[in-house]
Order: sequence, then C-alpha cells, then structure tokens
Amino acid sequence: MSLDLLIEKVAAMSNPTVVGLDPRLEYIPGFIKEQSYQRFGKTLEAAADAVLRFNKSLIDALCDTVPAVKPQCAYYEMFGWHGMKALAETIEYARYNNMFVIADAKRNDIGPTMEAYAQAYLGQTEVETSSNEAFNADALTVNPYLGSDGIIPLTEICAKFDKGIFVLCKTSNPSSGELQDIVCGELPLYMLVAELAEKWGEQLPGKYGYNGVGIVAGATYPEQLARLRERLPNTMFLIPGYGAQGGQAQDIACAFGREMTGVIVNSSRAIMCAYQKHGVPETGFTQAARTEAIAMRDALRNAAKQ
Amino acid sequence: MSLDLLIEKVAAMSNPTVVGLDPRLEYIPGFIKEQSYQRFGKTLEAAADAVLRFNKSLIDALCDTVPAVKPQCAYYEMFGWHGMKALAETIEYARYNNMFVIADAKRNDIGPTMEAYAQAYLGQTEVETSSNEAFNADALTVNPYLGSDGIIPLTEICAKFDKGIFVLCKTSNPSSGELQDIVCGELPLYMLVAELAEKWGEQLPGKYGYNGVGIVAGATYPEQLARLRERLPNTMFLIPGYGAQGGQAQDIACAFGREMTGVIVNSSRAIMCAYQKHGVPETGFTQAARTEAIAMRDALRNAAKQ
Repeated sequence: MSLDLLIEKVAAMSNPTVVGLDPRLEYIPGFIKEQSYQRFGKTLEAAADAVLRFNKSLIDALCDTVPAVKPQCAYYEMFGWHGMKALAETIEYARYNNMFVIADAKRNDIGPTMEAYAQAYLGQTEVETSSNEAFNADALTVNPYLGSDGIIPLTEICAKFDKGIFVLCKTSNPSSGELQDIVCGELPLYMLVAELAEKWGEQLPGKYGYNGVGIVAGATYPEQLARLRERLPNTMFLIPGYGAQGGQAQDIACAFGREMTGVIVNSSRAIMCAYQKHGVPETGFTQAARTEAIAMRDALRNAAKQ
Repeated sequence: MSLDLLIEKVAAMSNPTVVGLDPRLEYIPGFIKEQSYQRFGKTLEAAADAVLRFNKSLIDALCDTVPAVKPQCAYYEMFGWHGMKALAETIEYARYNNMFVIADAKRNDIGPTMEAYAQAYLGQTEVETSSNEAFNADALTVNPYLGSDGIIPLTEICAKFDKGIFVLCKTSNPSSGELQDIVCGELPLYMLVAELAEKWGEQLPGKYGYNGVGIVAGATYPEQLARLRERLPNTMFLIPGYGAQGGQAQDIACAFGREMTGVIVNSSRAIMCAYQKHGVPETGFTQAARTEAIAMRDALRNAAKQ
C-alpha cells in the first residue's frame, strides 16, 4: 500500500535516496546547540531542541531533491521524552514538506502489543471517541524474530492507514551473519526471513508491482543483495550501509528494478555531517548536506544506467 | 552485574514475580480515566495521565510483596511523547519504591545506535558536561537478530552502571517457532541464541552464580524451557506467558534453580485486571491486584517445593 507513495516520490525526483536523521549531538553545529543551551541549560530538553532545529534545517535544504527521511529512534529516545517530542515534530515537519518518513525503530512484539506499536508509529490511538496520531510516520522498520505474530498486526494497520513496513533481513553490520547467515536446511536464515516477508506482503498489494512489506538488506553485502533480488523481484529493499559504512553505488545496482524502482538507499552521517567532512564552516551545513545529497543521487543514477 | 540486585530482591520477598505494567486504557478503572479526561480532554495527554496514576496505585499496592515491575514500552509509545513521559515517571516511581524495573522494549540496533538505546534505558546521556538519565531502568529486553554488534554496546553500559539485559530467546507466542525452532545444524535457532547469550554474559559476572545477561523464555513452552535450563545453568530466565497466556506454575518449575533463584516470572493482565476478572468494584482494583499477586507468589512457592 503506502510504499506506492514512496515509489511515486522516488520517481518524481529520479532519486532513490533516504536521508537518515540520526542527530547525535556531535553532528550538530555549535551555533545551533549554543542557542538551545542558552535557553534551556545543558539538559535533555536543550539537546532535543537542538536536534529538532538541526533536522528542520536539513529538511528545508533537502526536500526538493530527496524524497524521504529516516529518523533513527534511538537518537531521540536517548534524550528521553523531550527527544520523543522532537521525533514527533520532526516527522510532522518532514511530511508537511512532502517527504516520505520511515521511522527506523526496529520494533518487535506480539499480538496486541505489536498492534500498539503499529498504532503509535503508523496508525492512530483511540482515546474513547477521539482518534489521535502519536508519531504518524509513513513506514516503520521491524524485526522478524518473533514470527508472524509480530507482523500480522502491522499489516492490518498498514492496510487501514495506507502505510508500509520494512522487515530486517540481512543487516549491514559486521556481525549480521552470526544468526542471519546460519544455514537452516537449504537456505540461510536471512533468506527464510525474506520468503516470510514476501508472504506477509501479499496482504498489501501495490500499484507498481511492489507490495507494502519491504526488507532491509545492507549495501555492505552485495552478493546477498543480488541473491535476494533474484528471489524477491516484487519486494522493496531499504538499503543501509551506503557511504560511511562502505557500500558504493555499484554494489547496490544489482538490487535496482527498472528505472531505479524497488530500492531506497540510506545515507545518514555522510549527508548530515558533510560540512565536517569537507571542512566547510558550520553555517554552511545545509548547503554542504545538499551538495552531498546531489552527488549521491547522481552516483545512484549513473549506477542505474550501467 | 545488576541482575544481582534482582536476585536479592526476589530472595528478600521469596517471590520471583515481575508484574507487567502494560496499561491499556480498557484496563484502567473508569474513575481514574474520568479525572484525567476532565482535566485534559480526551487526548493523548489525558491517557498518559491516567496510565501514570493507575501505575502508581498498583506500585503502592504491590511494592512490599512483589520485587519487580516490567513496563511494556509499546503501551506508552502509543500515547506519543506524553506516554513516554509517563513511562519515565513510572520507572522513577517504581525504583523509588525499591522495585526492580525491567523496561520491556525489545530494542535492537548496531554499534553506536545500540549504545544510544543503552544510554536511554540503562545509562546516562551526556549533554556537554552534564550527565542525564533519560529512562533509567534496571534492565532492558533486547532482540538478538543483529548478532553481537547489537549486544556488546549494551554490556559495556551494563558494566559501567551495574545494569542487566534479557535477550529474546524462545518467546511465548504461538508463531515463535517460525524462526526460533528452525534447526540449524544440530540445534534449533533459539538454542544458538541461548549459547550466544551465555557467551555475552561472561562479560558481566555476578555474585550469585548468574551473570548480567538473562534470556526470555516463555512459560508456554515448558519442554524448551527445560532444555534451556539444562544447557544454561548460570543464566537468569525472564519467563512471560504465565497466567493469561496459559502457562502454569508447574510448567516453569523446571527452570528454577535452588530456592527459586534463576527465574523471574511475568504476569501482566491477570494482576492489572484482577478486579475485572473477579467482578470486584473498580475502587477495589489495588486490593484485587494484591490478592492475585499473593496467589501467584504462593503458587510459585509451592511449585518450587515439589
């Protein structure tokens, strides 16, 4: 369902990039933080305030060339409920600026508890007769370890609110193979998860050949990425690990469908911290992020042509 | 490390129970909710206010007989940042009343991101020169699918702040076997996870023969519970699925170490909603919860004797 909206936004900008909003304090320019500290002291509230203003500036600078953002919830939860307020306001601001928002929360639980997460991040929470949006993202990352009991409640909310999910499959980190690559019968575990994801996705058919249940598959494992694409031609791939983690455009071209469909490629630090990497003055952080995002878009476009 | 504190509290009360605080609105007595609605309207803020007051009353009623509580984060996140504020205040109130708090968040991510979750739930968040507690629980549930990269950052924070974790191993839900029971080589996946958990726990030795990395193993699978105990004599088991999900005291006695050590058994709905189950007037909800908790304690004590 709602991954159709992502596909449309990617196509409109000819850019399959999602910018990770993982706002560690050391990524935020000093002049932004100083304003927050002056107002709130060196507190969680100040940190959350700085995070929100940093994010809004990045969204302003990127929303006409990048179709999506992916806030990583851990970097908001670390600032307590003030951080969660900044998360909600970041999501609202990005959607207001027509960006597709993937909440990277990797949530997982069972039955009614997973339904509560689905309401929190994708649907609405009922308080008697009133319906309320808690975080209201467009899609959510989830962990498959609990099996279908952890996914079906999500697909029901996705169907109702036209939203989507991405199931962790083959993650980008060095130790992902400890469990994910273990061979179970004839297939590695990540491939069994991929097949479950495809089955779950049948509940959420889409207009453009991709359903509402995508998978997460890291750019750092191009061989597995190619095997996954071969086996799952109709599944969206959320691809982390590009840029700072080492994945290159040519590593992920194998996952592209026709005209760069079927993938959304994440870069976080390389774009958020472009000003640090290129030695640009802090006040130029939005322009540096924009330049880096355009370079990534062009690299992906070139890889898609080859 | 900090699971020693849990072991001491269990021993002092001769009661290996943790009460789940999963405060769905329909569990909360009407007179509590009405007060919140009158003050805040039918909003997320009102719901979070009702949740907090419900939790505080339960904590008051239980803290001299039950050693631990386990707030399930989904039921706070569904009320947005107001809910997360209620979560932080629930944790603070329970710890102030000498209860051990397990944040049931099932978090999972890699490297610095997992470190951010660890800071959020177990450690402290630095804002320049100030150290701040975001949620400050005593232990956290985590998902193992990402491998060691998702666990090592936690054990480092646990060592520093004397806290513990519980790794999902064999969960209590019907579909847990879809992935967890798959046989990989000679062992089912859940047993491979158990062995990893034991290895991770070597970094956090404890005083009483149990280390700081426990596992989650459901009361609904007594056979697997027995196999896990046989293989992991020195690991704490967090056991959900007791009561409302069908697990009985005799089903879990196989997991007990000497004098009821080595386990912490969760019950949520059966205690929170005891007043509904037994047809007690709403105003008697704390006494009903206490009576139910004492019955559970006595059932566990009896099972341990057999």
